[in-house]
Amino acid sequence: MTHRCTIARLTGLAACLLSTAAFAAPSAVEMAQTGEDPALKITEDLTTEIGPRMAGTEAEAAARKWAVERLRSMGFANVREEAYTMPVWVRGAETAELTGPFHPQKLAIAALGNSGSTGADGIEGDIAYFPSFDALKAAPDAAVKGKIVFIDNQMKAAQDGSGYGYFGRGRFVGPNAAAKKGAIAIVIRSIGTDSHRNPHTGVTNFEAGVTPIPAGAISNPDADLLVRQWQHGKPLRLKLLLTPKTLGDQPSGNVIAEVPGSDPKASPVIIACHLDSWDLGTGAIDDAAGCGIITAAAKHIMAAGQPRRTIRILWAGAEEVGVFGGKAYFDAHGKERHAVAMESDFGADRVWRVDFKLPEGAAGLADRIAAALAPYGITRGKQPAGGGADVGALVESGVPTIDLQQDGTRYFDIHHTPDDTFDKVDPAQIRQNVVAWTVTIGLLANSADAELP
Amino acid sequence: MTHRCTIARLTGLAACLLSTAAFAAPSAVEMAQTGEDPALKITEDLTTEIGPRMAGTEAEAAARKWAVERLRSMGFANVREEAYTMPVWVRGAETAELTGPFHPQKLAIAALGNSGSTGADGIEGDIAYFPSFDALKAAPDAAVKGKIVFIDNQMKAAQDGSGYGYFGRGRFVGPNAAAKKGAIAIVIRSIGTDSHRNPHTGVTNFEAGVTPIPAGAISNPDADLLVRQWQHGKPLRLKLLLTPKTLGDQPSGNVIAEVPGSDPKASPVIIACHLDSWDLGTGAIDDAAGCGIITAAAKHIMAAGQPRRTIRILWAGAEEVGVFGGKAYFDAHGKERHAVAMESDFGADRVWRVDFKLPEGAAGLADRIAAALAPYGITRGKQPAGGGADVGALVESGVPTIDLQQDGTRYFDIHHTPDDTFDKVDPAQIRQNVVAWTVTIGLLANSADAELP
Repeated sequence: MTHRCTIARLTGLAACLLSTAAFAAPSAVEMAQTGEDPALKITEDLTTEIGPRMAGTEAEAAARKWAVERLRSMGFANVREEAYTMPVWVRGAETAELTGPFHPQKLAIAALGNSGSTGADGIEGDIAYFPSFDALKAAPDAAVKGKIVFIDNQMKAAQDGSGYGYFGRGRFVGPNAAAKKGAIAIVIRSIGTDSHRNPHTGVTNFEAGVTPIPAGAISNPDADLLVRQWQHGKPLRLKLLLTPKTLGDQPSGNVIAEVPGSDPKASPVIIACHLDSWDLGTGAIDDAAGCGIITAAAKHIMAAGQPRRTIRILWAGAEEVGVFGGKAYFDAHGKERHAVAMESDFGADRVWRVDFKLPEGAAGLADRIAAALAPYGITRGKQPAGGGADVGALVESGVPTIDLQQDGTRYFDIHHTPDDTFDKVDPAQIRQNVVAWTVTIGLLANSADAELP
Repeated sequence: MTHRCTIARLTGLAACLLSTAAFAAPSAVEMAQTGEDPALKITEDLTTEIGPRMAGTEAEAAARKWAVERLRSMGFANVREEAYTMPVWVRGAETAELTGPFHPQKLAIAALGNSGSTGADGIEGDIAYFPSFDALKAAPDAAVKGKIVFIDNQMKAAQDGSGYGYFGRGRFVGPNAAAKKGAIAIVIRSIGTDSHRNPHTGVTNFEAGVTPIPAGAISNPDADLLVRQWQHGKPLRLKLLLTPKTLGDQPSGNVIAEVPGSDPKASPVIIACHLDSWDLGTGAIDDAAGCGIITAAAKHIMAAGQPRRTIRILWAGAEEVGVFGGKAYFDAHGKERHAVAMESDFGADRVWRVDFKLPEGAAGLADRIAAALAPYGITRGKQPAGGGADVGALVESGVPTIDLQQDGTRYFDIHHTPDDTFDKVDPAQIRQNVVAWTVTIGLLANSADAELP
């Protein structure tokens, strides 16, 4: 109880819920602000010692083993893997070349997850140019049939990352639409805001019954080149080689660790990130940093003293390719009580806004959290929190959630590219994240039974 | 004469050398400031229609054909190719992987020009780490023999690009030093100032009698990773596959065009850039932009009226791999008189300083040029001008030169990488270059016989 009070006091909360004696040890928030930075260390070590960890592969399994060892060595309880299987897709060779009407030029391309294969000999075809996904949707089949579709809209940076959903449709559902209209392949401008020759991969999905066509993303400078050639008004030819494979169902798993609470009857706080990454980079900002942030916050709270509620850490597997880890967690634990579920999966830049989706009885709790976060430059948003992919099923089932919204201005420069490497993590900003999470889950883990389910 | 005077007047020069009637047409500098921008257009079209143009390859030949057509269509006189042959090296497969002590991780690598081959099966060896080229030089052979050398020093950005010479030694002569000490291969941190997964290639040279070893550059984030692994203090293993080839002597060539002067006895002004590029990017800033800048300036002067001296434009071939075009020009024309020789080969960012190396009689000319450039934010440097690679032999033989120094702060972010693409060219800054060149060569081409040889 002492500790709960200490955490509350030092996070800027005036009222001490269950006041006891004065407490001399450093608070969790003090440690988060000035002590060691396990968030940065986890990010550094996971990207250095494991690197890319594609869902369902040996690399993801090595990452799970690494995760279990690291979480145990940090002193967490009940550290374990929870296994499941999921369908695995792996990248093959990938090249693209504009072959006419000008001198041939190679393009930097990456296959999208679930892309079909061109076969080892590749294919060549005319480009059917569409300025946007909507233009492709509106096009008659005849404009697409037998051609290689190109979708050109360029995502713009926004602090809340809000362009991703809109522009991302070209990737999420563009290949399916192109396949249904008879395209032989699809190439999209990367869903990204940078200007480097590093394509942005990511998953795409084909409806049941639609045969996957080869689907790739080219980098923004390559898309610019394609468009400049297109503007000459002559038929544009593209040679494409993409040889990804599907390996059927393979083992994957979640890694779970806990800070046991003092009150065995209290429902737990669950905090999530994902351990898997795309294969092109080392998954530093997506999402080693998220795992670092939530785990560092839990560690600081644990070090400052036992919270009332258990804090459960979920390093989910196989998020990138279809949230299989999040679904497996829900299948195994969805019927248990959860006080609140949160996720960190938007990089490592600073938290700038907090959004809530809490039950009515938690209005005071939300006020306390918002007030405690304000000194760190974090404002209170007006929209309901969404949670995050790996806690999505929990949130949908009614579990409360809070979003500590990270600044996404440069997130989509790096997202799903070879450039997702440790050097992109700003030590000062990741530390601010840890402080914000420590403040928030400190208050959540010591909240009253009447406030959360 | 009228035109010469007009140019002089509108470039800010008070005295009109050979004053005649008033002149109503727009001046060259006015056109450079506000008219069409042939510099940007040349850069755009060369990178769009040809792309990478490695010396001695079919792509460079296509670029020469393109260049001749473009220069003729712009109205230049005496447009021609001047052929020579040069030894050609071409890139093969290239992969690198850290294989221990941690989970294997692939590195983004590019072979250096003149690199040896690992053979199709690749090689694997222990890393011999050196913080700098000097440390490698000082090391006993036993520390290197049978190992894969890694040189780690990271170039820092500078406006004058001055780090390139110092840090670049790791690339220029590091492989030769490593080979002589018995290394089986060498990998260097890219000579570049960015943090993207795009390695910086560039030429290296082995002494006669030294067998080339495989030599590659890894990107800065990959070098960071290697160093973080190295810091664990365990032996570090690297698997390397580089299969470049040498093709012996192949045809290359210079492209030359002229603005004929009115005085056939006056020595010509020669302005240079290079047409070839590295193969990874499209050679936009290195050096399509340079060709664009000098050619646009000559075009504006030609359009404003005939200068007294001939302006000779040299789009040199095969600069990147050993300045073969510059040497061939000198072999063919080195004994002719040249008033002055200049080159643009440092990107497309603004000119910020002007340096001179002129004969004593040209002190007034230098003052006039410096005064005319000042309104464009260009200061006068205190060091002698160096010229540029393709006019290097001319300058060494005594031909005067002037450097319009470009801002190199971001040049080595992009230099010799896949990222050297058209989007990196800032239209406002390339236009400022054209204005500076128009001002300068306008004054040079109308200078007196007593001022230049």
